[in-house]
Amino acid sequence: MKRSVYFDYSATTPLDKRVLNKMLPYFSDVFGNANSQHGFGRNAACAVDKARDGIAAALNCAANELFFTSGGTESDNFALRGIVKANTGKRNKVVLSPIEHDAVLSCVKDLEKDGIKIEYLNVGKDGIVDLSSAEQIIDEDTLLVCCMYANNEVGTVQPIKELCRIAHGKGALIFTDAVQAFPSIKIDVKDLGVDLLSVSAHKIHGPKGIGALYVKKGVKIDGIITGGRQENGKRGGTTNVPSVVGFSEAVEILEREREENNAYILSLKDRFIERVEREIPNARLNGDRERRVVGNANFAFLGIDGESLLFKLDLEGICASAGSACTAGSLEPSHVLISMGIEEEIAKSSIRFSFGKENTKDQIDYCVETLKKAIEELSAVPLFKGESIDKKV
Amino acid sequence: MKRSVYFDYSATTPLDKRVLNKMLPYFSDVFGNANSQHGFGRNAACAVDKARDGIAAALNCAANELFFTSGGTESDNFALRGIVKANTGKRNKVVLSPIEHDAVLSCVKDLEKDGIKIEYLNVGKDGIVDLSSAEQIIDEDTLLVCCMYANNEVGTVQPIKELCRIAHGKGALIFTDAVQAFPSIKIDVKDLGVDLLSVSAHKIHGPKGIGALYVKKGVKIDGIITGGRQENGKRGGTTNVPSVVGFSEAVEILEREREENNAYILSLKDRFIERVEREIPNARLNGDRERRVVGNANFAFLGIDGESLLFKLDLEGICASAGSACTAGSLEPSHVLISMGIEEEIAKSSIRFSFGKENTKDQIDYCVETLKKAIEELSAVPLFKGESIDKKV
Repeated sequence: MKRSVYFDYSATTPLDKRVLNKMLPYFSDVFGNANSQHGFGRNAACAVDKARDGIAAALNCAANELFFTSGGTESDNFALRGIVKANTGKRNKVVLSPIEHDAVLSCVKDLEKDGIKIEYLNVGKDGIVDLSSAEQIIDEDTLLVCCMYANNEVGTVQPIKELCRIAHGKGALIFTDAVQAFPSIKIDVKDLGVDLLSVSAHKIHGPKGIGALYVKKGVKIDGIITGGRQENGKRGGTTNVPSVVGFSEAVEILEREREENNAYILSLKDRFIERVEREIPNARLNGDRERRVVGNANFAFLGIDGESLLFKLDLEGICASAGSACTAGSLEPSHVLISMGIEEEIAKSSIRFSFGKENTKDQIDYCVETLKKAIEELSAVPLFKGESIDKKV
Repeated sequence: MKRSVYFDYSATTPLDKRVLNKMLPYFSDVFGNANSQHGFGRNAACAVDKARDGIAAALNCAANELFFTSGGTESDNFALRGIVKANTGKRNKVVLSPIEHDAVLSCVKDLEKDGIKIEYLNVGKDGIVDLSSAEQIIDEDTLLVCCMYANNEVGTVQPIKELCRIAHGKGALIFTDAVQAFPSIKIDVKDLGVDLLSVSAHKIHGPKGIGALYVKKGVKIDGIITGGRQENGKRGGTTNVPSVVGFSEAVEILEREREENNAYILSLKDRFIERVEREIPNARLNGDRERRVVGNANFAFLGIDGESLLFKLDLEGICASAGSACTAGSLEPSHVLISMGIEEEIAKSSIRFSFGKENTKDQIDYCVETLKKAIEELSAVPLFKGESIDKKV
């Protein structure tokens, strides 16, 4: 029987069965529109309120600081477009890291067309934002600083607290996309100090199609999907009650089991990194070794074409990725690795393995063995011989 | 035991159990990110493709003319904001009916701030758009005409085909929000002639949090939630695979059973209207008697405060609404009824009953009896005595 090994938890995660069980009554029984004033509506609204309270408590914010969206991408769009929309004219600059998710980068391109000035922070070869560039770039004209909490490709954890201090020192707001950090890092928005923060349910074994944006009380933001009076008038559309309930349950389970999961996943990742580095020549870990989320191992296999390697792994039932699923299929090398100063050919030899709670030690070992075999085969193809590229490193 | 009678199918509908059964495998088993290139991703993508094909076939459009969104409100925002964003400078006017859903009206307010000229069509006392005003207002400067297919409050069906001819005659695009029409009216976008059309799953016994926008091939539109390459680069965000699958199944069931359901629901509505008009003095049907969707009965109970009446019905387990759930809780009278030239006090005495396939004749009769009792009680309160208002009609 063909194996099926999922090492792409950064792309999405299976829904936890306990989460599904919580969601089930809200599909066909407690099915009301949470905005309706009658009994069916109130029962739905009650579930939504409870879910919002639960997630807000986990993030240490007030319930009215949390806005449900259709996911991380919408939350990112809401943060960037919504802040600019509500605060035009006062400050005119958005400062961001160049290793943001496309959800952020694409917004910024639109905002630039509308006359917003965009400046990028520097990122080191370790995949971590350079704070001295932040000191230089963030100024009195900066409306918003935007830096993800953990990078989706190399898993590096960014110095958000320090960036908050710099941003606030200049009177700028700061937004962090915490979609990739949330699965393994306990988030406390007050302690962190951010003004806006986005999270998504499907990265934490919750349902797809639901996310949230934290907006600190007092921060002016406009809705980008407008209509009814839902979400305090900031996000129209019938509330997705089953998904909101599922999101909340996923958060509750996460908070309860995060430490235990982290320890387990870390042990798998450590085993993987150790074996790859010991047994596969020309394998180089991308991104800082320590300051990264527990589930991420991103390797360059020098001299090997990453896409071909992924294809071979896939044939053996192993699912990993070249980078973000959102940019999958693109022929461009990863903008994250390029921003880290990694050469294009090395970027194209890189693969992200992201691990989760359902993975096993056996799967790790199977993957390492399969990698060794696949790389050996690919190295036999003259085009991908490693020597010339090797010298560049 | 307290009865539980749901007469608010225009607000939302229970998920059909057959739809849920189709969705279940996609939560925790076929859970991949549809954008991932590996096996898990391809299996998810395959389900999404099949669902898109099915819905496109039902609407008689090509699969690449259909864009999934988080629901009707997002689809409406996408249509309006996306068309203006992609076509700025050429034509500068949006023409719309004044009885649109808030999802449309709120966008238009934003567009007006950005310099777009807005003009409203006339609506008759019958709740139907006046075509002669369309002939007058739609001109060579009109970028987009926007008119819902069926109104969400009074259920009136609009002359979309005729509006298409007028709009296209002037080189304008035309968008229709078909969220309320879809449950009972067979939609063929080619036959109808529209350039853009929005639908939502949760009004047709599909899941909440998923909808679609049809965009005719060749029509230039920009995304409003940007990020990854999903939905042909027009709508970023991880595809909500279970909901897309559920949406498609709901459409399939709808297409198969629509005629049968329509006949049944119409018989309930006819019985309701007949009994109310015969047995409740001062009850007036709002909106055209014939040109309305099968499930809608919107009545003014002259001299009675609608909110108080709803409250009394709710106490007896009957769920109806004052208008759109999206504006529920508002103290304003319905903008739809006001646009139809109905006086404020009469608008405030109006209630929408919307029926669905799970309703029964017994529930209709129970509701009529409860209404009679409740109105009698409310009429005893001097404030709501009907005489003075009666004269106005």
